[in-house]
Formats: sequence, C-alpha cells, structure tokens
Amino acid sequence: MNNGDFERKDVPGPGTCHSIHNSQSAKDVDEPSASWVRRMISGFRIIKYIKQFVRRQIENFCISLNAISFWLQHRILKQTPEKKRAEKNLLLPLSEMDQDLLGMYIRWNAHHTEKTVRYKKNVGRGHAKPQLLRNALDEWHRRGYPRRKWIEWAEENLVDYQIWNQSGEPQIHPEKELPAFHPASPIIDVLFNRVSTRFWKAAPVKDKIIKEIVTAGTYAPSSCNRQPWKLYIRRNLELEETSRLPGVSNETLIDRAPVVIYITIDNRFYPEVWAPALDAGIIGLQLSLAATANGLAGCLMYGAENFDQEEFRRLYNVPKYQFMYLLFLFGYPAERTLTEKRSHPDDISIYV
Amino acid sequence: MNNGDFERKDVPGPGTCHSIHNSQSAKDVDEPSASWVRRMISGFRIIKYIKQFVRRQIENFCISLNAISFWLQHRILKQTPEKKRAEKNLLLPLSEMDQDLLGMYIRWNAHHTEKTVRYKKNVGRGHAKPQLLRNALDEWHRRGYPRRKWIEWAEENLVDYQIWNQSGEPQIHPEKELPAFHPASPIIDVLFNRVSTRFWKAAPVKDKIIKEIVTAGTYAPSSCNRQPWKLYIRRNLELEETSRLPGVSNETLIDRAPVVIYITIDNRFYPEVWAPALDAGIIGLQLSLAATANGLAGCLMYGAENFDQEEFRRLYNVPKYQFMYLLFLFGYPAERTLTEKRSHPDDISIYV
Ligand SMILES: Cc1cc2nc3c(=O)[nH]c(=O)nc-3n(C[C@H](O)[C@H](O)[C@H](O)COP(=O)(O)O)c2cc1C
Ligand SMILES: Cc1cc2nc3c(=O)[nH]c(=O)nc-3n(C[C@H](O)[C@H](O)[C@H](O)COP(=O)(O)O)c2cc1C
Repeated sequence: MNNGDFERKDVPGPGTCHSIHNSQSAKDVDEPSASWVRRMISGFRIIKYIKQFVRRQIENFCISLNAISFWLQHRILKQTPEKKRAEKNLLLPLSEMDQDLLGMYIRWNAHHTEKTVRYKKNVGRGHAKPQLLRNALDEWHRRGYPRRKWIEWAEENLVDYQIWNQSGEPQIHPEKELPAFHPASPIIDVLFNRVSTRFWKAAPVKDKIIKEIVTAGTYAPSSCNRQPWKLYIRRNLELEETSRLPGVSNETLIDRAPVVIYITIDNRFYPEVWAPALDAGIIGLQLSLAATANGLAGCLMYGAENFDQEEFRRLYNVPKYQFMYLLFLFGYPAERTLTEKRSHPDDISIYV
Repeated sequence: MNNGDFERKDVPGPGTCHSIHNSQSAKDVDEPSASWVRRMISGFRIIKYIKQFVRRQIENFCISLNAISFWLQHRILKQTPEKKRAEKNLLLPLSEMDQDLLGMYIRWNAHHTEKTVRYKKNVGRGHAKPQLLRNALDEWHRRGYPRRKWIEWAEENLVDYQIWNQSGEPQIHPEKELPAFHPASPIIDVLFNRVSTRFWKAAPVKDKIIKEIVTAGTYAPSSCNRQPWKLYIRRNLELEETSRLPGVSNETLIDRAPVVIYITIDNRFYPEVWAPALDAGIIGLQLSLAATANGLAGCLMYGAENFDQEEFRRLYNVPKYQFMYLLFLFGYPAERTLTEKRSHPDDISIYV
C-alpha cells in the first residue's frame, strides 16, 4: 500500500476544503535499529507529548472561555453580539443611515408590514412598522434616491396597510394572479417568479409529489459533495383553508402548512464554520424551486437559534450532531404575495 | 403619531425575525408634575443606569473572552473547534462509522479523488484519497449497504484514478456530453442537471449575460427580504482554454475562471447568527442555476474563514461590515463532471 502521500497537505491554496490527512493506514512505521536513534526518537516523543498536553490544556481553556461567554450572553444578558449589532443599527437615526442601510431598513419594515396586515387588526400587531416604513420612505425620497421596483413594492404595502387600518380585516391578495407553473416551465420564468406564500388551500400534497421535491433536493450542490442533509418531513393532515384564518406568525405557519420540512445538517465532517449553513440555504432554495415547478408554493423559515434545538431533537428523535438551520413550508397557495420587491442589479453588483 | 405599539414585541413565537423596537419617535415623554413622582422616576433611572452599566461590563467581558479564545485558536493552536471535530471524525476507524458517516466519508474522498485526477500526476496530489476511498467503499459493500447511484459515481472516480495512475495525464471528460440549456429549458431538467465545472473555454462571457445572471440573483429569497447581497464581479480577460491546463486548486480556479463573483453579505441588520450564511448560499444557487440556464457552468467555492477577509476588503475596497461567505466562478464549460453523484431521496428524508 502506498502511504507516501498521507502526511502531505494535498489541497493547496486558500479556500479549498481543508485537507485533514487520515493516518488510518500509516501506522506501524519500522524503527531504525541504532539505539541513539531510538533515544533521540523517544526524546522527540516526550517533547511531542508535552506539546500535545499543552495544546489540550489551551484547547480546554478556549472551550471554557467560550462556554462562560455563551452562558453569560444567553442566561444573563439574553443578548448576543449579533442582536446587539442589529439593535444598534436599527436604532440609528434615519439621517445617519447610508443608502444601503436605509434600503435594507425599508425592505425589512415593508416585509414586517406585509406580515402585519395579514392579521386581524388589534390581534397581536399594530402600527409600528408601517410608521417606521413611512418615515424611511420619506427619507429615501427626500434624498432623491432612485425609485426602484422595491420602493414601489414598499409603497404598495403601505396602501394595504391603509385599507387594513380602515377595514380591520386581513389583507390577502388572490392566488389566482400567481403564474401557473409545471415541471416543464421555462427555468428563467420560475427563477423570476418564485414567491413566498404563507396561506394555503385545504388540499394535501400527494406523497409522490413530496418525494419528487425531495429528489430534486438531492441534486443540490454541497461543499465537498458531502450531501449532509436530513429532511424531517411533517405532513399536517387536518387542513383548513388557511387563507380564511388570519395571522402568519412562524408558530401558526408550522401548524397550518400542509407540509413542513425541517432542514438539518449533519455537521460531523465540517472543518468549516459557515459551510453547513451555506449547504442548508442551498438545498432550501432547491426545494423551494422544485415546489414552485410543481404548482406549489411556500416559505422558507429561519431555524437555528430561534428554535429550541434540544426540544426539536427530542420530539423527532434527531441525533445531536444534526443542527436544524432552516425550514421549508409548502402547499397549494391560497394567496399571492407581491413579487416586485427586488433590488436593481446595479444596486448589488460591483465590477472590480 | 401613534407610538402605542413601539414597545411591543410584535413578532410572536419562536423563529420569526427578531423584533427590535425602534424608539426613534418615542422620545420626549411628558413628565408628571408632582415632585415625589419625579424623585421616584429618578430613583428608577439610577437603578436603570446601574443596570445598564453592569450589562455593558458583562458585555465587554464576553467580548474579551471571545477575543482571547479566538486569538489562542488562530495564532497558537491554529485550530478551531470545527476543525477538531472534523479531524476526530475523519480519523475514526471505518468500522466505527455509522452508515451516514461512512456515506459522507465516501463522497468527501470521491470528491477529492475527482479533483486529484485533474492534475498532472506528481504535481501536488497523490494516492491518499483514492486509497481511503477504496477502503471505505470496500467497507460499504462488506456491510451490504445499498448500491446507490453515488456509490457507482465513487467507483467511477476510482476508474478515472486508475487511468490517471497509468497515464499520468489529467482526466477530463468532454463537455460535449453536457446537456445544452437555454433560458426556456424546463425547470426540472435544469434542477436535475446543474453540475459543477472547473475548466472553461477561452471565451469571455458577455456583460449582458453577466447582468442577466445578476438580475436572476436579485430574485432570490432572503430572510426578512433584506436582500443583503453585494456581488463583487471580476472578469478575467486574458483567457486560455483552461481544460488544457491541469489543476483545480481554488487559487488557480480564481485566476482562470472567465468570471468570478465574490458573494458578500452586509451583516448590519442581522440579529440572527446563521441567516447571513443561509442568504449567501441561497443567492449562490440562484446565480448558479441562472448561469446553467444560459449555457454556462461553474463552481461554487467556500469563502469565509478560508479567505483572508481583510486582504479581500483592501483589494476591492469592501466595507468592513460585509463578509464574503461564498464565490461563484463560471464561464463556458470545457469539461463535464459526473452528475450521477446524488443521494437517494430515502437516504435524506425522514417522515415524522
Ligand atoms: C434564510 C431565510 C429565512 C426566512 N425566515 C422566515 C421566517 O422566519 N418567517 C417568514 O415568514 N418568512 C421567512 N423567510 C421568507 C422571507 O421573508 C422571504 O423570502 C422574503 O420576504 C422575500 O420574499 P420572496 O420569498 O417572496 O422572494 C425567510 C427566507 C429566507 C431566505
Ligand atoms: C458551499 C459550497 C462550497 C463549495 N466550495 C468549493 C470549493 O472550495 N472548491 C471547489 O472546487 N468546489 C467547491 N464546491 C463545489 C462542490 O464541490 C460541488 O458542488 C459538489 O462536489 C457537488 O457537485 P455538483 O456541483 O456537480 O453537484 C462548493 C460547493 C458548495 C455548495
């Protein structure tokens, strides 16, 4: 057996999958006979062991530091660095936001307004986000920034809000306006018209179609072709036409969606920090496009630290090395959400 | 102005976008006149300030703990918890791997074998991964596990390796065998036939087509519709037919791909830890499918901690609140990589 390459770092350059050599078959190295060589080697060994010992101590120390920090953040502060960062930026006076930040602020608040008007008035949600949105849009216009499609979309959401404010009734656009897709629809049409849906018809999705969508999922690319996904598929069988029921909180969505797919990643072979989440996002979109291609529609939903992973694991018997990053909920759509909410390509591309 | 809702946590339930109230217009509260009320309020204020002071101290303490741990890991240990985890699992004896782990181990090593045979023999890569792959496949067969398509794919890679081992020449399958796609191709065909390519023809990609692909990117879903992406687009104009050049290290790929898109995320509005990476993966696949739909092909590439983000920022004048998670490299393909490497849907789905 040729072991000559086992010790070599054989994936050169930055950015490749980390090469971690596997010494499984590199044991049993013959020892030279001269005793001074032996002694030297055991001298080296002692140094090596001391080194390893120190490494392990430092490693444990790091683990302790992280654990203390994690505990303080979650139990005492109930705050993470990420939350603090977002809070700080969301509280910036509009005048201090640059164009990109103001743009994201508008889209964020428009998205929340879109969700607000899907409740009955005075059930859980109010006027906060629409008001913030109005102020931000005024700031946008005052600065003479371009009137992009997504600005129109944000304004449209405020029109929905006005009607909602007067009528008190959930504002839901009819799904009849959605384009009808099937597996042979042109790829470009589907890429440009996939849209999130949070209300569904009381029609179950056939297992054959669920399997078709999962199969499409297996064709998603993954880092180093690990294909690390497990999809926990829950079918809600007691269905009501959900568009008649107001509200789109994540909890209610999970109970009402005809199909809920919990996307988990087996993280055991990941030396990378972010690759598991990238792979989760990627299969999420693949599933979502496959659903669209089958005349279905749904909504991705953030999992990760927003969910009690322990409870999730207990509930569905999920091994502890799987982490649930994302969910995909779908069924036959009973609403159309406004599609024209996209950035202009010039806003997101920089030619270098 | 109605401020009644500003203090309300108006996104109920787990898993929704965090609601961070914005108090911009909630200032200037009238103070009642009775002086004991005033004193009580200032009493509350002092407690509040002490609380805030303690919070800030704890926060700074957490930041210090994290910084120390990060420094030790990156400068002294040159090891992260993630790397250590992967190392431990990759070094497990095959007999101790469960079916999922053995499967990922096979796909990981087959993927690296696939990259190995694209070099000239004795240029940087060797026999390590193919040997590990052979052993793992033998273990798979010994246990009588099902002969899935991706097992055949792994075996095919070993056939490529045999030929490479004898001829010493890079093994590249002709791109003629790739299906020819265009924007009107059926969505399902594209989802099932997108494939990574790491060699390209010496043909530049027209700016109009790059813009078409970026435009498709703007239609990707993102958490809370933030659309937080910036794409740094680099066109390599001095092109050679790369299939004549061996090697597919990430560094060489970046130099040779006709177009390189660095996908960065503006993280300023993310209270979530993993949502930026999910959003990056999602636009990555959208771009990749749009490229496929235009007769192009490419390869996603892990960015994040595998790249020197500081250097990247300096080079392309990238603000520090953007993090580069992923790249997408593409052009007109000059190779076909084997597609039939997909898990069986039964292997990744659990009905609960
Ligand atoms: C990573 C990710 C997480 C998301 N999380 C949620 C969520 O928790 N709740 C929800 O209602 N929608 C969620 N969405 C859906 C987005 O709100 C939606 O994609 C966005 O508003 C753009 O709309 P579109 O999907 O119609 O293009 C999520 C989307 C992504 C990509
Ligand atoms: C998040 C992610 C990161 C990747 N990183 C790399 C990389 O650094 N180098 C590389 O050559 N390929 C990379 N790839 C491409 C994968 O190796 C490829 O997608 C996988 O082998 C499956 O093959 P397919 O794309 O043909 O389906 C990456 C893919 C993903 C999804």
